[in-house]
Amino acid sequence: MTTLSITDGITAVEQILQDVVDSDVEVLRQASQHIISSGGKRIRPRLALLAYLAAGGADPLEAVPMAAAIEMVHTATLVHDDINDHSLTRRGKITVHARWGRTFALLTGDYLFTKVYELMAPYGGDFNVTMADACIKLVEGETLQATAAKSGMMDRETYKSIIARKTASLFEAGARMGGQLAGASEAIVEALSVYAYNLGLTFQIVDDILDIIGDPEKLGKPVGADLAQNRGVMAVQNGDRVAGAKVTVANGGEMVTAVADANPFQQMMARLRDSGAVDVARLQAQETAVRARNALQQIPPSPVRDELENLIDMVLDRDK
Amino acid sequence: MTTLSITDGITAVEQILQDVVDSDVEVLRQASQHIISSGGKRIRPRLALLAYLAAGGADPLEAVPMAAAIEMVHTATLVHDDINDHSLTRRGKITVHARWGRTFALLTGDYLFTKVYELMAPYGGDFNVTMADACIKLVEGETLQATAAKSGMMDRETYKSIIARKTASLFEAGARMGGQLAGASEAIVEALSVYAYNLGLTFQIVDDILDIIGDPEKLGKPVGADLAQNRGVMAVQNGDRVAGAKVTVANGGEMVTAVADANPFQQMMARLRDSGAVDVARLQAQETAVRARNALQQIPPSPVRDELENLIDMVLDRDK
Repeated sequence: MTTLSITDGITAVEQILQDVVDSDVEVLRQASQHIISSGGKRIRPRLALLAYLAAGGADPLEAVPMAAAIEMVHTATLVHDDINDHSLTRRGKITVHARWGRTFALLTGDYLFTKVYELMAPYGGDFNVTMADACIKLVEGETLQATAAKSGMMDRETYKSIIARKTASLFEAGARMGGQLAGASEAIVEALSVYAYNLGLTFQIVDDILDIIGDPEKLGKPVGADLAQNRGVMAVQNGDRVAGAKVTVANGGEMVTAVADANPFQQMMARLRDSGAVDVARLQAQETAVRARNALQQIPPSPVRDELENLIDMVLDRDK
Repeated sequence: MTTLSITDGITAVEQILQDVVDSDVEVLRQASQHIISSGGKRIRPRLALLAYLAAGGADPLEAVPMAAAIEMVHTATLVHDDINDHSLTRRGKITVHARWGRTFALLTGDYLFTKVYELMAPYGGDFNVTMADACIKLVEGETLQATAAKSGMMDRETYKSIIARKTASLFEAGARMGGQLAGASEAIVEALSVYAYNLGLTFQIVDDILDIIGDPEKLGKPVGADLAQNRGVMAVQNGDRVAGAKVTVANGGEMVTAVADANPFQQMMARLRDSGAVDVARLQAQETAVRARNALQQIPPSPVRDELENLIDMVLDRDK
């Protein structure tokens, strides 16, 4: 029997996230609490806690700081991403960058990274190796993405490598550490890792689709926001400006190029929707979702395993 | 007897610094190697290794990755500082920011931070707590400095708090971990920590003095570079511009204000030199150097202790 439900676990994660950014340096505390309290889906800590429970862990409290650290990595990268993307809103709120300026946003992101360190330190060597590895991959993924955006070249292999590193690796690390903390067998830990890795791929592909066809009110940001910054399933050539840009889309291994001329942004979005790229991306998301589902079959059936399975559907069917 | 000399130890640190930034993502590898190979005084890893040896450590190789991690923290912050300060040169070479642009510089700094994590992970819980704490203080110190620069207010207490956090904490952490790795007594570890903390304060005060009166060729950057960015012993009011700025100097607890009007930068520098602020700062550096020297008396005499003592003189008397 577990003493904490998953809802209690997430509440405990929220508490840690808020409490750990307790600096006496006002701007760090305020900017950190601003981004932390802006919510987010919390899918990464949820996944980490569910993996711990599915692997037979008895005291979720031991996994809570790790789950919080996983969400903290994600939060730190959001703050730095928003600087690089010049984003003004995030989750319907003003970004740290827009409110406190670039210098303090950069330092707030660094501060949140140091808090990952603080939260993880007590877990010892193996766990810190896993976390370090995930963080390295995440930064590499972001860098590959920025490189692809700059060159205007994005093929299917590059896209896969980007989303594997920038998103799937952190999902995988949370589930792996959850399984290891629960003391599960290597086979169970591997199954949870493969599940989480593919859930992460699915999540990111759907995220990129929503950037093209989603409802801006539900998303809390304008449709095309990532696209305008050369992110997501396609890369816009010629730097940051969309006007007159040539759009290259990774479309099932083929490259589709669209040139937006007059009223360029709307036309470009329409072309993307019509190009078939979104349909291909949807198929890819379904494929990775099946891989995640198959990996779950290696785990003994339980209500928690059902929750992990539900997570796949939530990720696949979400509209924000 | 030790198998490695301190020179061998520093060579091993250099090798690790170069080897650990082995990403297949070209820009991360190149930008990291660029900043790492630009040299620097390596005083932090030298201090960490000497502390290990002075505390009776027998195998310096066990302290080398930790010493490299300490230098890596410093290196990561340099890359991010140069973004915030718009600096074009560092150690006589072009900055990462100037050569690869802001986005890649931000990501390179993040990447170097993840490598700190990787290098430290094998040391386990206590060491990672010490390192996390030092990193948190460092970011807090940088943030206090940016806050003081923005407000134009810098009194003696604020200055002390800034240099303690942004510089002395990392010096202290390296020496503390060196002593702990060597298995020294709590008293020896504390003495090494107090020594290193005060050495760090001395180092930073001298650094700020050199920014006002140093030789630009020796420094590898223009005199007044930090001052122009509202760093160092004084804060320039009204944001980033020096022209016509009012300069407020922390002068032994008193505030000295100078207004630069025509040919403003040169006049301001001259006023600062004449204000007595530099002389007061020199006295402060001598005071912290004495504290460092006194702490060293708690350590048993040895050739390595002599090297630690020489480090104080090197820091105090340096001209670059």
